Amino acid sequence: MLTQAGCLARRQRLWQALPETMEWVLVADPRHVHYFSNFWVNPLSFSAGERAWLVLERSGKATLLGDNFTLRSRAGEPVVDDEIMVRWYDHQHSVINRDHALLQAAEQYAEKLFGRAGAVEAEWLPVGAFELLGLDHERHSVRREAGDSTKQLPVDLGTVIRRLRRTKEADEIALLKECMRAGEAGQARAREIVRPGVSELEVFLAVQEASIRAAGRAGLIYGDFRAATPTQPKVGGLPTDYKLQAGDLFILDYSVVLEGYRSDFTNTIAVAEPTAEQQHLYDTVMAAMKSGEETLRAGARAADVFDATERPIREAGLAERFKHHAGHGIGLAHPEAPILVPESEDVLVAGDVVTLEPGLYVPGIGGVRNEHNYLITVNGYERLSNHVIALK
Amino acid sequence: MLTQAGCLARRQRLWQALPETMEWVLVADPRHVHYFSNFWVNPLSFSAGERAWLVLERSGKATLLGDNFTLRSRAGEPVVDDEIMVRWYDHQHSVINRDHALLQAAEQYAEKLFGRAGAVEAEWLPVGAFELLGLDHERHSVRREAGDSTKQLPVDLGTVIRRLRRTKEADEIALLKECMRAGEAGQARAREIVRPGVSELEVFLAVQEASIRAAGRAGLIYGDFRAATPTQPKVGGLPTDYKLQAGDLFILDYSVVLEGYRSDFTNTIAVAEPTAEQQHLYDTVMAAMKSGEETLRAGARAADVFDATERPIREAGLAERFKHHAGHGIGLAHPEAPILVPESEDVLVAGDVVTLEPGLYVPGIGGVRNEHNYLITVNGYERLSNHVIALK
Repeated sequence: MLTQAGCLARRQRLWQALPETMEWVLVADPRHVHYFSNFWVNPLSFSAGERAWLVLERSGKATLLGDNFTLRSRAGEPVVDDEIMVRWYDHQHSVINRDHALLQAAEQYAEKLFGRAGAVEAEWLPVGAFELLGLDHERHSVRREAGDSTKQLPVDLGTVIRRLRRTKEADEIALLKECMRAGEAGQARAREIVRPGVSELEVFLAVQEASIRAAGRAGLIYGDFRAATPTQPKVGGLPTDYKLQAGDLFILDYSVVLEGYRSDFTNTIAVAEPTAEQQHLYDTVMAAMKSGEETLRAGARAADVFDATERPIREAGLAERFKHHAGHGIGLAHPEAPILVPESEDVLVAGDVVTLEPGLYVPGIGGVRNEHNYLITVNGYERLSNHVIALK
Repeated sequence: MLTQAGCLARRQRLWQALPETMEWVLVADPRHVHYFSNFWVNPLSFSAGERAWLVLERSGKATLLGDNFTLRSRAGEPVVDDEIMVRWYDHQHSVINRDHALLQAAEQYAEKLFGRAGAVEAEWLPVGAFELLGLDHERHSVRREAGDSTKQLPVDLGTVIRRLRRTKEADEIALLKECMRAGEAGQARAREIVRPGVSELEVFLAVQEASIRAAGRAGLIYGDFRAATPTQPKVGGLPTDYKLQAGDLFILDYSVVLEGYRSDFTNTIAVAEPTAEQQHLYDTVMAAMKSGEETLRAGARAADVFDATERPIREAGLAERFKHHAGHGIGLAHPEAPILVPESEDVLVAGDVVTLEPGLYVPGIGGVRNEHNYLITVNGYERLSNHVIALK
């Protein structure tokens, strides 16, 4: 889980990134509420899809806004100083529109923001809440305080936070490592059971079971659980009832998601004995990954990482068969910056967590993709994933 | 999945519920986008947490707004006439803030709403999108069209839709039945494996595996996977590593969620031989459920259903041990109206899907709760859940 030290460090970086005149922000993207406060509605709970919002003040104060049922569905103890909790359901009375309870919580806090410069997360705060904050309490209007009532909000808060997210704090890395250990257990299980006659769904069930058992707690498992066949070498997504056949390859590219953070690594498993051509694709992909790894460090240009990853593939005359990114950032969404692609303008920073995932897909032969996850450091990287990558 | 016939029927009911002058609505709650269009971002996909919005027009036209990566993560084929898809990621370039791609999609459609009365779902449409629709294109302002620029939106669209949601269409009932069959498989599996020494996590893993295997596709499993012990007779939530002991009861109250719709039914399993006192709690709960069932029909007052359910518990002198609702509506959220509680003002309608879940929790003895799910009809109900309810 995210820790107090981590939440406070992230808030400190936020205030450093904002204009000094800004005294408060209202965070509304559920990922960002989590990021700054450890308040996370577990998608495996009866409040999945419900929301709480977070007011952060430059003074240091953090206040959570929500209805009582949603706040009760917290995955862990939130790092906040106060909660404005509107009673929505009490097991005695009918309920109102649950969203309106949340809006009421925002309205109750509006008075506290009076006459002080601030910003809302405009991509997520609903217009209904904004009206309660800004129009029914005209003098608090965030837009008026921006000095421009018609054109824009004072700060692009969501984009500022997305930039901060790239530099992972220690608690985020610990959580990512927890996902990695669970993901490795699922990868290991898949290597035991992939064989002709087993369905994609069977592989998914076994991987899910092994991953959650290793995590020791419920979490989400998603990714590509599809056979790469000679006729369909590149397909992705959740499993079907297709039964694996000799000659197929199984590209197991999946994520374990715990509290919104995720691992994302891949191994390609030959369903029967790999052919020489399949082995050649595999060897080329491994050379690509090694070549890309050599460029990973803070300050590296993402376009150069792509180029280095692609080089062994070009040299093997297979560039036409590599049609996707070389990798991307991971954390609370998929994909995130930095994006490792030919025209990328991103530059790696210390604290980025990225994947490298070269892949080759050739009709008549099949598809191969392998992937590791890396924490970018000043001098290079720490590889976070330790699963076995092998065709057999 | 939701069907074209179902989506069109729900839209028809929506237009009947709105003022005749209203020509368009912008739906932004992801549940409601799904409800009217079968567009659903699978939470088991790389786009979990991302959104698309839906413009419905009285002429019948439906348009989906979103970025290309999110629209690609659809769980099924959406029932729409058009899509405004903003390219966010192309495997060649860096990415902008993904939310801004979504906002651009809304902006691109703003012109089409020119001079026509409409409403937005104000609890979900972010202020950033609203500004693009209403202020940068001043003449389109939804608020101006409401005839009141400062106080309120013309229609409480979210609340109107929540009311519509109570009356399930045939495709929703089919999806709920799919959840029920999967839930029953998990309940059956739990009855096989609950015994002393097995951990809560083991029970969860087995229930998850059996449910998803029965569904034949990935879905979410959440609920109460905790032992009801004599010292802690009422706890809930996701499993721990606690190992079940003789004398414990296991209240397996869980949901299978497929495309956002869910089952929600319960059985209480004795870990070893139940005591006479535990059996008495069980018998009383079963009498309560039977008494409640007898009142289920369209037109029944929810408060009366509660009263009937509680009656056998009162007669057993155990009213103090029954401290929660008698049940609630289910569908796309938890809980939903109708709420079966003492002070409820709800009245059952045909098409409601409800649970009955009386429970008793007595320190020194343990906790028992059992639950079925019912589709309310004009003359009574159809029971949707068919799991075995038995202590052993």
